[in-house]
Amino acid sequence: MSNTSINNNEVDIVIAAINSDLEPFMNEWRPVFSQFHLIIVKDPDMNGELHIPEGFNVDVFTKSDIDRVVGSSTSILFSGYSCRYFGYLVSRKKYIISIDDDCIPARDTNGDLVDVVAQHIANLQAPATPFFFNTLYDPYRKGADFVRGYPFSLRSGVTCALSCGLWLNLADYDAPTQALKPEQRNSRYVDAVMTVPVRSLMPVSGINIAFNREVVGPALFPALRLAGEGKLRWETVEDIWSGMCVKVICDHLGLGVKSGIPYVWRRERGDAIESLKKEWEGVKLMEEVVPFFQSVRLPQTAVTAEDCVVEMAKSVKEQLGKVDPMFARAADAMGDWVKLWKSVGSSSPGV
Amino acid sequence: MSNTSINNNEVDIVIAAINSDLEPFMNEWRPVFSQFHLIIVKDPDMNGELHIPEGFNVDVFTKSDIDRVVGSSTSILFSGYSCRYFGYLVSRKKYIISIDDDCIPARDTNGDLVDVVAQHIANLQAPATPFFFNTLYDPYRKGADFVRGYPFSLRSGVTCALSCGLWLNLADYDAPTQALKPEQRNSRYVDAVMTVPVRSLMPVSGINIAFNREVVGPALFPALRLAGEGKLRWETVEDIWSGMCVKVICDHLGLGVKSGIPYVWRRERGDAIESLKKEWEGVKLMEEVVPFFQSVRLPQTAVTAEDCVVEMAKSVKEQLGKVDPMFARAADAMGDWVKLWKSVGSSSPGV
Repeated sequence: MSNTSINNNEVDIVIAAINSDLEPFMNEWRPVFSQFHLIIVKDPDMNGELHIPEGFNVDVFTKSDIDRVVGSSTSILFSGYSCRYFGYLVSRKKYIISIDDDCIPARDTNGDLVDVVAQHIANLQAPATPFFFNTLYDPYRKGADFVRGYPFSLRSGVTCALSCGLWLNLADYDAPTQALKPEQRNSRYVDAVMTVPVRSLMPVSGINIAFNREVVGPALFPALRLAGEGKLRWETVEDIWSGMCVKVICDHLGLGVKSGIPYVWRRERGDAIESLKKEWEGVKLMEEVVPFFQSVRLPQTAVTAEDCVVEMAKSVKEQLGKVDPMFARAADAMGDWVKLWKSVGSSSPGV
Repeated sequence: MSNTSINNNEVDIVIAAINSDLEPFMNEWRPVFSQFHLIIVKDPDMNGELHIPEGFNVDVFTKSDIDRVVGSSTSILFSGYSCRYFGYLVSRKKYIISIDDDCIPARDTNGDLVDVVAQHIANLQAPATPFFFNTLYDPYRKGADFVRGYPFSLRSGVTCALSCGLWLNLADYDAPTQALKPEQRNSRYVDAVMTVPVRSLMPVSGINIAFNREVVGPALFPALRLAGEGKLRWETVEDIWSGMCVKVICDHLGLGVKSGIPYVWRRERGDAIESLKKEWEGVKLMEEVVPFFQSVRLPQTAVTAEDCVVEMAKSVKEQLGKVDPMFARAADAMGDWVKLWKSVGSSSPGV
């Protein structure tokens, strides 16, 4: 971490405001966030006034901004947890970090505050090693290296496009797990980050995430929306769906995805048992989705993230569209997202 | 770990005696090893008398035992680090744990002695999850679970066949790395174990390893021997080669491989710079070997580890045999190993 040099002008922190009172959240994060530019997107479904404390470099976007920039000619919905993606769209920075507004900074095993920005940027700036597993985790970390038997030709690694952080206290479980084990809290701080190997799928959580916007920005989108989706994390799968897409796209483009540190401390909220009925839908969908993503292959002509999303959308429509109309809608949203990404990126000065 | 119930009669601890004085080693391990049966195999190249302290349930095998059981009609050499494989051959237990004789017990972050046997057996007894990556590591561990988005159909997992432990202090680096960073010591205790995903290759180290002998025993063998191989770990690749084979075989048979805890504390020894000339050969070989193992596919008719080793040996001979005669010799040794495994297993009462 000490080797990470962060250019503050290269980082946007994007916060989806699901709660109107962001004061406690922002004050907890002040030591970490205050030197960076923040993009706060207010859930367009929320009526209350946003409370944001003084002392931050922040741009706030609300329903009227979304309507103005995006218009109504799109299948994309920015409501609830999905409002953060509007922030991804209007950012012009190289790196985006996004943290759910029910998380506060975690402490490491020494009791020190985890600098989530520094660690995410370190993950993104150091190469990833998707083509061979290093048993000592991140070989570029201070005090670590490639172990005996690791091919020298693979030791330079590839660009890391996505860094997926983890959660202490309330982990990111689904509603059934949460309902079954209401007392379970994650207290194990695993001091490691690793590259998720090529062709290995994973559940990407949007709770604590960072990515290289210039490289994979177009592949992070709100496309799959559950009919009964609500305002609790375990009722959503938009990040899981987008995460499967982005992992396949990174594999195709020869980019890396990391998982591990940094942790955030996730606070309790919501009633898992109430959510069970809605979430069950998401649980069932995964069974259809995983074999599709395990087998889908992108054409060699797809050489950018935009290309890949367009091709992925075609395959989703062809192969999953008939299984459930929700998938056909997701495919449409992915196509619309790429159009939006191109038009907003070229027409607007951004923030 | 508290959920692991170990039947002592199901475990053999196999030690390759490279050093004649095993007293310090055995005394350090007494609290962990004393309740289990030990198989000590003396390096047939070593002339000195073995020193083994009192109070262990141990069978010792020497050159004369190897000659008697194996005979001379084989291409397999059991000298140096490879002598441990003779212990694998004569064991009749379900689980084998093998630790290099320059390692002593590690301590975890609480300062408690790591029970390497209990943790390896826990790893082998809990299912593995090679088909989807769980970001919170081992989902079966106390306090952990599958995260949101993990497909329910994959949550029962598969049999874990191999558990690869790690090293504190002197990590398992190759001679070039060791020579380049002579002061580097691994002090990071990462409190995690995970399944290495299907089709992801890894450098399996023989230093601290455990496996289900009944399931994959035939796939752990001393087949690839470097011309200038010596008596230092970083001069050997027999475990790396066997590890590539066993990973491909586990992937083919739908079995899991885990990497992570338990750690051992590895003591310094040897001069890396002296080893560089020999080890460089192993480093170069990996560049030929990795593309082979990434692409090799076993036929559906191969349904046991023995079948798989025989088929793998054929492919090695065909595809790598012409690259270097060392590979052709390795293929022969793999064929001989399976014959030996069958004959020793059926003819001898074992230990």
